[in-house]
Order: sequence, then C-alpha cells, then structure tokens
Amino acid sequence: MKRTSYAGMPCPMAQTLERVGEWWSLLILRECFRGTRRFGEFERRLGIAKNVLSSRLKRLVEAGILARRPSPEDAREVEYRLTAAGKDLLPVLVALAQWGDRWVYGGRAPSRFVNRHTGAPVQTLAVRDVDGQVLAARDLALHPPDADRA
Amino acid sequence: MKRTSYAGMPCPMAQTLERVGEWWSLLILRECFRGTRRFGEFERRLGIAKNVLSSRLKRLVEAGILARRPSPEDAREVEYRLTAAGKDLLPVLVALAQWGDRWVYGGRAPSRFVNRHTGAPVQTLAVRDVDGQVLAARDLALHPPDADRA
Repeated sequence: MKRTSYAGMPCPMAQTLERVGEWWSLLILRECFRGTRRFGEFERRLGIAKNVLSSRLKRLVEAGILARRPSPEDAREVEYRLTAAGKDLLPVLVALAQWGDRWVYGGRAPSRFVNRHTGAPVQTLAVRDVDGQVLAARDLALHPPDADRA
Repeated sequence: MKRTSYAGMPCPMAQTLERVGEWWSLLILRECFRGTRRFGEFERRLGIAKNVLSSRLKRLVEAGILARRPSPEDAREVEYRLTAAGKDLLPVLVALAQWGDRWVYGGRAPSRFVNRHTGAPVQTLAVRDVDGQVLAARDLALHPPDADRA
C-alpha cells in the first residue's frame, strides 16, 4: 500500500507527521525516553519485526530525531539516542498518553508520567496563550487563516 | 500491507495511536478544529481520496472522536463534529504543530495558533509536574515502571 506523503503540505503539523507519523515510530520514541538504546532491546520490548524496526530507526535517524553511534561501553555495539529535536517531542508523547488515560482508561491508565526525583504526577497539558489564558478549541485560530492548506 | 495493531498494549499512548494513529486522521482532525464539517470540504481542503476519507471518518466516529449527524441547515447533508473526546485532542495537535514550527521551519512556520479573540500567540507546551516544575525527559519516569510494555 503506497501512502500519500504529507511532504508537500506547508503545515507544521503535517511536516511533523511526515517525520514521526510512521506506524511504530512514536512507540520507538517512547522506549527511547525510557532509556532503551539497542536494537535488540527495542525488538524485545516492543515485539516488533526486525525489518520494520530497522526501517523505522533509519527513518528517525534521517529525520534528525535519533542519533546512531557506537556504544560507549562496547564499540562493536550500536546505540540510538534522542537528539535535541527528539527530546523536544516529549510534549507530543505526554499529550497522547494523557488523552489515552482520560478517554480510554477513564483516568485509570496502567501507567503515568511522574517526576522521577519527587514522584509528583505530571500536570495535564493545557493550551495557553502568552497571557496565560487557557484556550479551548473555540478560542483558537490559525494565523494566517489559510496558510497551511494544501 | 497489514499493520500490526497496538490494541493489546496496556499503554495509554499506544491506545491513543490505535484510535488516531491512522495516516490522515490527524489532518482530518486539524480541519475539524478549523470548522470543516462536510465530506466534500474535507476532500477539497486535504486533497484526499474519497475512499480513504470515508474510511478515516468512519473510524474516528467509531472511536468516539467525531460525531456524525444531519446538518442543522440542511437535513439531507451529513456533518462531522468533534465530540468532547475529540476536542480534548487539541494539545496533541498543538504539540505536533509546535515541534514542526521549531524543527522543520526554524521558528518560521507558515502558520501558527493564536487566541482568536486577542491575537495573542499560544505558549509553547511544556511538561510540568503538579508542583509547577518544568520537566525534561531526564526528569520523567513512568509509574509503575514496566506497566505498559507489551
């Protein structure tokens, strides 16, 4: 199945999906945020086929989201680490997890994010403007209005 | 191409992807947030094939993210509206758009979200704990640690 590409759309959301929207990619990133670095660990923890894992890792490296380098402990091993751009996807992952907690698990998800040092739970992400006002969908507009339509 | 399903994974992020992770679905939701309601409008604004659009809308309705109902202006027309669960995906969309603005467009995206009433730009989403501390990836843990591995 050939998929349409978002590559030509002048929209920052479409461009992000073009880079991380592949099936499995966000779960690979979840594992990276949890410290997984080696091919075999991703494979085992995600239950993902080798060829699919290999292609998703390659694409994430090409997109500048992961860096591939020899392991500092054993130079024969390769590891994958989040780049600055990869680490900056954290709000995307947390927003996805919080939605699932609320709407799939009714607030009783099997796991949630906490502050590693204090155990304090993470706040629910809210969209605010620079004046601190919380914005619902009806309060938002895109500016300019039609810039990102294909 | 048959895709593996995330359905069996006890992870709130995987469960969200299971519902909205289809290719095109997030861009359909972007259009919904902008007020698009009718099949033909989605088709025209996204440049998406009819059969794909139809299957994505159906799936979003089944997932409880969109509601399908007769148009109040013309009962022969059908419209698709965000449910409360759908509106609650706003932080996911904003997080994706902000990442693209920063890492694809270098902060000069062709469009960005503003407060419709005042024009004030939206703040960059940050992950904070309930004590107000901004958390980077290294400050976060999942609790319990292995609950969501497949």
